[in-house]
Amino acid sequence: MDKEQITPVEGLSALSLDALTSVAYGPEAIIVVLALAGAGSLHLVLPITGAIVALLAILVFSYRQVIDAYPGGGGAYAVSRANLGAGFSLVAGAALIVDYTLTVSVSIAAGVGALTSAFPSLTSATVPICLAILAVITVLNLRGLGASARAFLLPTMLFIVGLLAVIAVGLIHPLGLKESLPGRSLLQTHGLQVVSVLLILKAFSAGCSALTGVEAIANGVPLFREPRVKRAKRTEMMLGLILGAMLLGLAVLARRWHIGPRSNQTVLSQIMGMAVGRHWAYYVVSLTITVVLALAANTSFGGLPILASLLARDNYLPHVFGLRGDRQVFNSGIWVLAVLSGGLLVAVGGNTNEMIPLFAIGVFTGFTLSQTGLVVHWWRTRPARWRRRAVINGGGAVVTGIATIIFLISKFEQGAWIVVIAVPAFVLLFVRIHTYYVKVALELGVGTVPAKPAGKRTLVIVPVSNMSQLTRFAISEALSLSPDVIAISVRTDRTEGEHELSDDLVQEWTQWNPGPPLRILRTEYSSIVEPICAFIDKERHEGDRQIVVLIPMVVASRWRYRLLHNQIDLVLSSALRKHADVIVARVQMPLDTPV
Amino acid sequence: MDKEQITPVEGLSALSLDALTSVAYGPEAIIVVLALAGAGSLHLVLPITGAIVALLAILVFSYRQVIDAYPGGGGAYAVSRANLGAGFSLVAGAALIVDYTLTVSVSIAAGVGALTSAFPSLTSATVPICLAILAVITVLNLRGLGASARAFLLPTMLFIVGLLAVIAVGLIHPLGLKESLPGRSLLQTHGLQVVSVLLILKAFSAGCSALTGVEAIANGVPLFREPRVKRAKRTEMMLGLILGAMLLGLAVLARRWHIGPRSNQTVLSQIMGMAVGRHWAYYVVSLTITVVLALAANTSFGGLPILASLLARDNYLPHVFGLRGDRQVFNSGIWVLAVLSGGLLVAVGGNTNEMIPLFAIGVFTGFTLSQTGLVVHWWRTRPARWRRRAVINGGGAVVTGIATIIFLISKFEQGAWIVVIAVPAFVLLFVRIHTYYVKVALELGVGTVPAKPAGKRTLVIVPVSNMSQLTRFAISEALSLSPDVIAISVRTDRTEGEHELSDDLVQEWTQWNPGPPLRILRTEYSSIVEPICAFIDKERHEGDRQIVVLIPMVVASRWRYRLLHNQIDLVLSSALRKHADVIVARVQMPLDTPV
Repeated sequence: MDKEQITPVEGLSALSLDALTSVAYGPEAIIVVLALAGAGSLHLVLPITGAIVALLAILVFSYRQVIDAYPGGGGAYAVSRANLGAGFSLVAGAALIVDYTLTVSVSIAAGVGALTSAFPSLTSATVPICLAILAVITVLNLRGLGASARAFLLPTMLFIVGLLAVIAVGLIHPLGLKESLPGRSLLQTHGLQVVSVLLILKAFSAGCSALTGVEAIANGVPLFREPRVKRAKRTEMMLGLILGAMLLGLAVLARRWHIGPRSNQTVLSQIMGMAVGRHWAYYVVSLTITVVLALAANTSFGGLPILASLLARDNYLPHVFGLRGDRQVFNSGIWVLAVLSGGLLVAVGGNTNEMIPLFAIGVFTGFTLSQTGLVVHWWRTRPARWRRRAVINGGGAVVTGIATIIFLISKFEQGAWIVVIAVPAFVLLFVRIHTYYVKVALELGVGTVPAKPAGKRTLVIVPVSNMSQLTRFAISEALSLSPDVIAISVRTDRTEGEHELSDDLVQEWTQWNPGPPLRILRTEYSSIVEPICAFIDKERHEGDRQIVVLIPMVVASRWRYRLLHNQIDLVLSSALRKHADVIVARVQMPLDTPV
Repeated sequence: MDKEQITPVEGLSALSLDALTSVAYGPEAIIVVLALAGAGSLHLVLPITGAIVALLAILVFSYRQVIDAYPGGGGAYAVSRANLGAGFSLVAGAALIVDYTLTVSVSIAAGVGALTSAFPSLTSATVPICLAILAVITVLNLRGLGASARAFLLPTMLFIVGLLAVIAVGLIHPLGLKESLPGRSLLQTHGLQVVSVLLILKAFSAGCSALTGVEAIANGVPLFREPRVKRAKRTEMMLGLILGAMLLGLAVLARRWHIGPRSNQTVLSQIMGMAVGRHWAYYVVSLTITVVLALAANTSFGGLPILASLLARDNYLPHVFGLRGDRQVFNSGIWVLAVLSGGLLVAVGGNTNEMIPLFAIGVFTGFTLSQTGLVVHWWRTRPARWRRRAVINGGGAVVTGIATIIFLISKFEQGAWIVVIAVPAFVLLFVRIHTYYVKVALELGVGTVPAKPAGKRTLVIVPVSNMSQLTRFAISEALSLSPDVIAISVRTDRTEGEHELSDDLVQEWTQWNPGPPLRILRTEYSSIVEPICAFIDKERHEGDRQIVVLIPMVVASRWRYRLLHNQIDLVLSSALRKHADVIVARVQMPLDTPV
C-alpha cells in the first residue's frame, strides 16, 4: 500500500474492515453451536457475547500498547521475532498465512451469505458467486487496483452507520416485525446436547471469530498521518467501541427475538429483517454488507505480501518475495492466495460455518504471541509505567492463550486438525528454506572479502539466422564488447540439401564484410542447441578466454506476437545454464509491426 | 525419428500401423450406418467393402508413384506446396493437423473398444482407460521413448498374423460358433431409413475411415534402407495386400454371420468370437489389437512435429516449431496434441463411431491434394511414361476428390461441420502468421545487406546484493567485457533504517577495493527494478556508450532449489525488454549445496 497518510476515519476503512465485518459471521457462529442444545439454550447468546466483548476490550487495550511499542508496524511475526526468538516468530508467520487465506474465504462466503439471504433464489449459485467475487478481487489486485484505501471509505461508513441504525431501530420497538422469513428453522426441537460447559466453551470459541482482524491497525501504523501513534490508537479505540456496540446490540436482539439458525438465512439477515422489515433499508444494508465483506477479503491480498517480504528478508521464504514492489513478484503472491482460498471455498461449498473452526485458531495464536512478546519487550526496555503495561499485555496473552487452547480442544474434530497440520508444515518449510540459504551463503562466502577480480580476453559468439538490421545491431554490440567476434549460423541437413538459405547468407556476409567471420555449423537433426553448445564447448577449451554468447532477439509490439519470436533465446539460455563460465547475453531489438 | 534405416517388414510396423489398425473401426463404421435401415440391408457390407478395397488399390498405386516422385518424403503438404501453390498446401497442412489429432483419438478409442469387448466389465471405465493410455503415450514421448520403431515389430507381426489366422479359421468353418455374445443387439427391427443411394454413400464414406494412413509410407521414404524407393514401394504394396485381405475377409464373415452392431461389442470382436470362440486365441488377438492401436496413436506424436517444422520453415507457424530436435520445443508439440486429443476423447465419451464422420474428411482432402499435385508434377517434369503415371494419379485424385465431397455432404450434420470450420480456421491462422513474418522481415530488412557494424565504448553495470564469491565472479567477468564497470546495490527504506547490510557492504567493498566503484541506490518501495532501471536510463543518456547489465545468478543443483534463486534476473530482464540498446547478460555460477 502506498504511503497515503490516512486519518483515523480512513484508517477504519483501510485497516478495520476485517474486524468490523466479523459481525456478519461471529454472532451466527455462537447461535449455530447453541442451537444444537435446542431453543432453551439460545438465551446464552447474551452472556457469551458479553464475554467476547470483554475479551475485545482487553485486546483493544493490548493493541494500543503494541502501537506504542512498535510504531513501525508490529505484526505478530515482527513482535515475536524481536522478543521471543526465531522459533516463535515462525509459528506466528505460519499462523498468519493460514489466517490470511481464511480471511479471504470466510469473508467472501459470509458476503455471499448476506446476498443469498436477501435474494434466496441465488442460493443454488452460492459457490459460483463466491468464485466470481474472488475472481474480481484477484483481477483488481493483479491490475494494482486493490490498494486504494480511500475508495473503501464510502461503503465502510454506509455499513457502520446503516447497521448501527438498524440495531437501534430494533432496540426501540421491542416486539419486532412479525414478517414471515424465508428458509426453514434449523433449530433442534429436542436438543441433541445438554447445555454443558463444553457446549458453552464451543459457542464462545466459535464467537471469537468476531474478533479476527483487531490486530490490523497495529500492523498498519506507518500508514497514518502524523502524529501516527496517537491517530492509530484513536482508531483502535473507535474500532473497539463500534465492534463492541454492534456485537452487544445484535446479541440483545437475537435473544429478544429468539433467533435460531435458518436454512438460507443468516442470523444477521433475520435480525435485520425483524428490525426494519424486508424493505429498502434491509436490502441496502444487506448489499452493503456483501460489498464490505468483499473489501475485507481484499485487504488480505494487501497483507500477505508484506508478511511474505518480512519472511523472505529473514531467509525463511524465497528471496523473490522480498521484491514485493515489483509487479511480477507481487502478482505471484496474489495467485497463490487466490488459488488457496478458492480451493477452500469449493471444498466447503461456500459455507461460512464450516470454516469458522479453522479460522479463530490462527488468529488467536498470533494474538497470544504478540501479547507475550510485548510483555518481554516491556520487561527489557522498562519505560515509564512498564509494569502496568506488562500486566495489560500479560493479561491479554493469558486470556487469548487460554482461548486458543479452548479452540484447539473444542474444535479439533470439526476441522481444527487442519490448522494443527498446516502450521507445523509451514514452519518446517520455513526452516528448510533457511537451512538452505545458510548453506548457500557459506558456499558463496557471503560477507567474507574475496580475492581481487581480474578480467580476461573475451570472445563474443553471435548466433545469426539471416542478414538483417537485427544482425547488424547484434554484431555492432558484440564489437563493443570485444574485438574478437564470431558469428555462427546453424544449418540442418534439410536446408543444406536445398542450398537456399545457407548460400545466400554466406554470399551476403562476404558482400557485407563486417569484420567478424561467419561460421556455418551443420547438424543432422533439427536442433539448434546441440551444434551451438558443441561449438561453444570447443571454444571454451581453447585458451583462457571469457566466452560471451550474444543472442539477438526482437521484442514484439504486442504480447501475442511474442509467441512468434525468440524461442531460440529461451532454448539456448536454458541449455547454457550448466556452463558457469559462459556469459549469456541478449540483444533486444524492438519491433513495431502491427498486423 | 532417427535414421534407423528400416527394412520393408520394419516399415510395416513403423509406418503402416495407422492404416492396418483401421480394420478395427472401418468395417464397424459401415455396419453401423447400414443397421439404420434394418437387418435386410446388412448384406450391402460386401459390395461396399469391395468398392473401398478398389479405392485402396488405386491409392496404393498412386502412392507408389508418390514414392517415385518424392523420395525425400512427400507428405500432402510438401507435394501440394511444390505443385499446387501455397494456398492448397495450407489446406493440406490444416487437414493434416486435424487428421493427426483424430488418429490419436480414434485409435485409442478403438483400442479401448477392443479391450471392453473382451472384458465387458470394463465398459463403464471407457473414458478413464482412454485417458490413461493417452497419458502413457504422452509420457513416453515426453521422455523421448516414443520413436523406437523396432519395439513395434513384434506386436505388429502378432496382430497381422493373428488377425489373418482368425479370419482364415472363420472362412473355413462356414457356420461359425453359435456362442452367446455379451451385449445386446443395436439392430433396428424395423429399418428407420430405406436403403437409399444416400445411405449407401454414407456407409461407403464411413467405411473409408479404413483407408486412413495409407499415405504414411510415402512420407517416410527417407527412413528406409537403400535402395529406399524400391523398399518403400514394396512396403506400400504389402500394406495394400494385407489391408485389402483383412477388409474383404471381415466383410465376407460379417455378411455370412449377419453381424450387426451390439452394445459393448465391436463388430471385430463379434467376428473374432464367432470364428474362434471367446477362448485364449480371441483374448490374445483382442489384447494385441489394443496394443497396436495404442502404437498407431503413438505414430501421430512422431508425425505432427515433422509437419509443424515444415510449416514453421515456410513461416506459417511460429519459428520455434522448426527446432523440433530440441527437446523443450518437441515437448510443447506433444502437450498440444495430447490436450487436443484428450479433449476430443472426453467430448465423445470414448466412442469411436462419433469421431468417424470427422476423421475421413481430413485424410481424403490430403489424398486428393497429393494426387492432384502429382499430376501437375508429371506434367511439368515429363519423365518416361509420364502420361500413364498422370492418369493413375489423376484417377486417384478424381476418386478421392469425389469421396471427399460425398463425406462432406453425407456427414455434414454428424460432425463434419467441425472440420469445415477447423480447417479454414487453421488456414487463416497460417496466413496471419505468414503476413506477420513477412512484415517483420521487411522491417528488419532481412536479406538486404545492412550498413557496416561499429563498436562503441562499453559500460558494464553489475547489480550486487552482498560480498561473496558470486560477486567476485561477476566483477571479474564484467572487467573482461570492459574496463568501465559500476557495481550497484539497491537499498529499501527499511534496510536503510536498520543500517545493517548497507554499511556492511560499503565497508567490505572499500576493504576489497576491486577497482570498479560501488553505488548504493535508495528506494522507498520494495522494488529493485525501478531504481536499477532509473540508474540505467540516466547512464544511457550520458554519452554514446553501449550499456551492458550483467546480472549475477546462481544455478542451483536441483530443480526445486531454483525457486529460491535468481528471480531478480527474471524480473529485471523483463523490465529491460523495452531498452533496445541495453545488453542484458547473465553470469551463471553453479552451486552444489545439498540440503
